[in-house]
Amino acid sequence: MRTTLADERVLMKHGAGGRAMRRLIEEVMTVGLAEGLKPGDLGLNAMDDGAAIRIGDRWLVMTTDSHVVQPIFFPGGDIGRLAVSGTVNDLSMMGATEVLGLTCAVVIEEGFSRADLIRIQQSMRSAAIEANAPIVTGDTKVMGRGELDGILLNTTGVAITEHVVTDAGLRPGDHILLTGAIANHGFAVMTARHSLQLEGNLVSDVAPLNGLIRNVLAAGGRHVVAMKDPTRGGVSSALHEMAAKANVTIVLEEAAVPVTDEARAVSELLGIDPLHVANEGKAVIGVRPSVANAVLNALRAHPLGRDAAIVGRVVEGRPCVVLDTGVGRRLLVEPEGEPLPRIC
Amino acid sequence: MRTTLADERVLMKHGAGGRAMRRLIEEVMTVGLAEGLKPGDLGLNAMDDGAAIRIGDRWLVMTTDSHVVQPIFFPGGDIGRLAVSGTVNDLSMMGATEVLGLTCAVVIEEGFSRADLIRIQQSMRSAAIEANAPIVTGDTKVMGRGELDGILLNTTGVAITEHVVTDAGLRPGDHILLTGAIANHGFAVMTARHSLQLEGNLVSDVAPLNGLIRNVLAAGGRHVVAMKDPTRGGVSSALHEMAAKANVTIVLEEAAVPVTDEARAVSELLGIDPLHVANEGKAVIGVRPSVANAVLNALRAHPLGRDAAIVGRVVEGRPCVVLDTGVGRRLLVEPEGEPLPRIC
Repeated sequence: MRTTLADERVLMKHGAGGRAMRRLIEEVMTVGLAEGLKPGDLGLNAMDDGAAIRIGDRWLVMTTDSHVVQPIFFPGGDIGRLAVSGTVNDLSMMGATEVLGLTCAVVIEEGFSRADLIRIQQSMRSAAIEANAPIVTGDTKVMGRGELDGILLNTTGVAITEHVVTDAGLRPGDHILLTGAIANHGFAVMTARHSLQLEGNLVSDVAPLNGLIRNVLAAGGRHVVAMKDPTRGGVSSALHEMAAKANVTIVLEEAAVPVTDEARAVSELLGIDPLHVANEGKAVIGVRPSVANAVLNALRAHPLGRDAAIVGRVVEGRPCVVLDTGVGRRLLVEPEGEPLPRIC
Repeated sequence: MRTTLADERVLMKHGAGGRAMRRLIEEVMTVGLAEGLKPGDLGLNAMDDGAAIRIGDRWLVMTTDSHVVQPIFFPGGDIGRLAVSGTVNDLSMMGATEVLGLTCAVVIEEGFSRADLIRIQQSMRSAAIEANAPIVTGDTKVMGRGELDGILLNTTGVAITEHVVTDAGLRPGDHILLTGAIANHGFAVMTARHSLQLEGNLVSDVAPLNGLIRNVLAAGGRHVVAMKDPTRGGVSSALHEMAAKANVTIVLEEAAVPVTDEARAVSELLGIDPLHVANEGKAVIGVRPSVANAVLNALRAHPLGRDAAIVGRVVEGRPCVVLDTGVGRRLLVEPEGEPLPRIC
């Protein structure tokens, strides 16, 4: 019913992680794909970070991501580190921190530099070692000059876990934690792409989070009830999805959200809210109040969680995100999509 | 040591399934990626159709493929059917015919037709139902106009099996079977791409083979010792890989290789040997002589194996493929790569 003339072609916003993308996925990509799943399995219709399939008394978790970031090398990382981290993080967000294997499929434009390919491969290898996630199989395709802009990576990961954490488990009273400062990835890629000269040291946060999340689950156990990595569309998109799925209101305290001075400066320069900007090494975590402090301490004890904070509370109400600015409250509007294309 | 100036850029041949591609993968893509695997696991270094990871007393088999076929719709299939079939077939070639789940990652060029996207999605869905292989999770990215030629699909699959069949198990005395007529996929895509007008009905063979391979394994059991689907580089590349890995000579009887009249006509018109052309619904199978006839009968009893034939024998000798033309024998040269780019 929503289809209009403008919807007859795929637009940039359809890949940007916000409302437009969710509609495309719901209206086209997932239609009729649930048949083969057994009841209880978590498939595409759940629109989570991945799928969970029952194997005996455990779950096989699977997730896939293509990476088209531009430029491929940026402050703090590159497309290879991004691909490994993104997939490890999606598995981690479902509670699966022990990675059985990653696949790596690479599509390369004819004429691509072999030296750059080696650099990307070595970066993938380092990130895989960091995450203790072996890259077990791959595929290589080449497209003609002008048929692809440089290189594209797809990584798919599988892991086994006894307990799956979805992004739908919030209820009133729960606390929302952020594992660290936001928006550095999106802003770092953007400044690299447009060669903006900035003060300070703005670098992407891209990192595999499975070690950090292992600590979270050890501290919070089954009271860790929802996790999501705020990539495209940023923390705002992640919170909107969590609120919608659990049918709750999330109240976010703006002053509690960690933002570095460098990211703040770029945000003000460009007029882009850091809440809408992609991260690649952060998690939004919903926990029962009884474990909030234990999880916070576990986060802060890990190098990737030093700046973690409790940033919000879940309350009864219609599914939405309310921003408490300290001087008042307003609705946080869900972005139509990530403001920056090809951010991951 | 092999690196020369010409090797400093990635060329089309590096994605074409032959010697050039194998060198790129060995010299760049797989370097140092074995660390995380346990002894006995089958990873990238095995250069098989996928990986096999031990889980208890069974194996988790994983495989990944990107699909860049051009045109995306061709006689007998499309990129969606190709993606599902290709992944199901790679799993099947490792003996894993019960698919737990497939992932589907799609990268779309801005401006791509929504109707075509729906058509591709429905085709994936049909092929997945045909293979009883649920598509469990996905990813959608959009690239700008001119940054990607249309659409690209990545499918990754996982399956569990009690016994892994590699492509390295041949020994002298074994028989080589082909499940049907060759080269129809490559020639069908080529005629579609160049709008060649041909007599007859040349269509791609693209199909999921797990049902057929299930019959093969039921008939031959552990005496089925090597399988490979002859995609890029065709039957020739597949046989060369099998011969090299097992350090044996394969003698191929040219007259026994099934080729349709339509494919023969295109082959003669273009001067391309059908043995070098991609298939997407065929398997090369090596078996112990004791089960050769039983496996042949099992193949012929299945709709996808009606034209199956015993096409060769394994003999002692240096790793190579010898073509017996009926009037003499000559070395079958391994192609540098698939003659047609973007064939799958």
